[in-house]
Amino acid sequence: MSIMDTVHTVNSIHASQPIGVFDSGVGGLSVLKHLVRVMPSESYVYLGDTARVPYGNKSKETVQLYSKQCAEFLLQQNVKLIIIACNSASSLALEVVRACSNVPVIGVIEPSAHAACAATKNHVVGVIGTRATVGSGAYARALSERAGADSVSVIHQACPLFVPLAEEGWTAHPASRAIALEYMKPLRDAGADTVVLGCTHYPLLQDIIHDAIPDATLIDPGYYAALEAQRVLASMNALHQEHAVPDTDIEFFVTDIPATFSQVAKLFLGFDVAAPKQAVIDDHAIRQH
Amino acid sequence: MSIMDTVHTVNSIHASQPIGVFDSGVGGLSVLKHLVRVMPSESYVYLGDTARVPYGNKSKETVQLYSKQCAEFLLQQNVKLIIIACNSASSLALEVVRACSNVPVIGVIEPSAHAACAATKNHVVGVIGTRATVGSGAYARALSERAGADSVSVIHQACPLFVPLAEEGWTAHPASRAIALEYMKPLRDAGADTVVLGCTHYPLLQDIIHDAIPDATLIDPGYYAALEAQRVLASMNALHQEHAVPDTDIEFFVTDIPATFSQVAKLFLGFDVAAPKQAVIDDHAIRQH
Repeated sequence: MSIMDTVHTVNSIHASQPIGVFDSGVGGLSVLKHLVRVMPSESYVYLGDTARVPYGNKSKETVQLYSKQCAEFLLQQNVKLIIIACNSASSLALEVVRACSNVPVIGVIEPSAHAACAATKNHVVGVIGTRATVGSGAYARALSERAGADSVSVIHQACPLFVPLAEEGWTAHPASRAIALEYMKPLRDAGADTVVLGCTHYPLLQDIIHDAIPDATLIDPGYYAALEAQRVLASMNALHQEHAVPDTDIEFFVTDIPATFSQVAKLFLGFDVAAPKQAVIDDHAIRQH
Repeated sequence: MSIMDTVHTVNSIHASQPIGVFDSGVGGLSVLKHLVRVMPSESYVYLGDTARVPYGNKSKETVQLYSKQCAEFLLQQNVKLIIIACNSASSLALEVVRACSNVPVIGVIEPSAHAACAATKNHVVGVIGTRATVGSGAYARALSERAGADSVSVIHQACPLFVPLAEEGWTAHPASRAIALEYMKPLRDAGADTVVLGCTHYPLLQDIIHDAIPDATLIDPGYYAALEAQRVLASMNALHQEHAVPDTDIEFFVTDIPATFSQVAKLFLGFDVAAPKQAVIDDHAIRQH
């Protein structure tokens, strides 16, 4: 019996198995960074779907198909838990990925909705993200569920320029500040005291986002997803705690040729990483429906 | 014998066949607009690979694979000529698409390089585009070939923020002006008197690009590709000239669910269009190389 068969048929999790993380591209490294800080003794397999990035401007059906393929790839790598680092995929495909996985699957929406409800004092929460994330209403649903009896008012804002600004490295550019001020206006006007950074790239811009809405608490979903992963693994007695000295082992896969991945990875993670391997997408043709 | 077999085995072109146009997404509609103006009596099949957009930040190998699949789809629609509207695909995949097609294939690079060489007086030409287009050096090669004995100095500038600015509709926003001024600085410093708008979205920003480098002539590749297509079809006696009153027939296909395509199409084209059909990508899995 192959490893893949074992994973798909036997629901037994071992502490030594790696944690799987997938994202539409490199942005999920901002989530991986938190995972490594919170659980430095774990092994990780990271998959970036760089051949089809971004997901945030695509339909629910397409994001679900791509997310399912990413999860299946991670399951083949024998992971013990899957983190959906991408907010768009977490918003649109969490249930689909859970349905095809026999290991726990954690998205970034629910843990950060919980954190936002705990942080807000006036119950006005801003959520910024891609069009797909904002359009899905996933954060609004998660916030309402968490808020329970206290109603919460959610102000959504799609910020399509933030990803290219972060990737250009324009994290303190006057144009970036002007754009952040404009995007944050509806949140300021509504008096949001808490803002969820609902896209993996946005933590790179948190200084200018803070300056554009200085009284608000910023919630970085990657941190809360990492805490939730730790909680779930601990509850299953599946945390890896063997290393006296933390020695994180990370394997990287990307679906496009990994030309500049290592430099970008260092930018996001703050440390050098092994060169990524290429994962291949089996797409043979475009045909008429 | 099916239509597809005919197309692939018999190299006979009829004037009544449609012209095929493909692009990574909706941007190619700026090229289609010129085609329709130059040849209003033709039929067109447009394919936007919206499930995998954009191509401009992806590798040569991935852009070649996707472009080949787009061309094969158009050949199945029995087109008489293929226009690669996407500058990134034209830069990286023209030869690959030509190799798999038995109809003429026209990219946007060569015709606009010719136009730029005709327009420049001081032989300093700026080329702006995606990272893929700029990194390929395709414009520099085409300009050098066209310039012949006169050497031409080519100043490249990748402008990754221009596509999201155009898609946000921020075509006259102060932040857009600041970004355009910054991107055009190396071109102004070098004294470029001609600038090729080497990405399908950039014509939407031509006013602020002009203001950022007011003395330069802007070259819109879509217009010159349309003239080249007309020339090639005329030379093959394959222009469709039956309609006394022009009655353009355009069929649209997209690889992602076409939620907002019709609105965006109207923005680019200036007239209402039929709803697009979905073309399906046969991608079944991500596997380890």
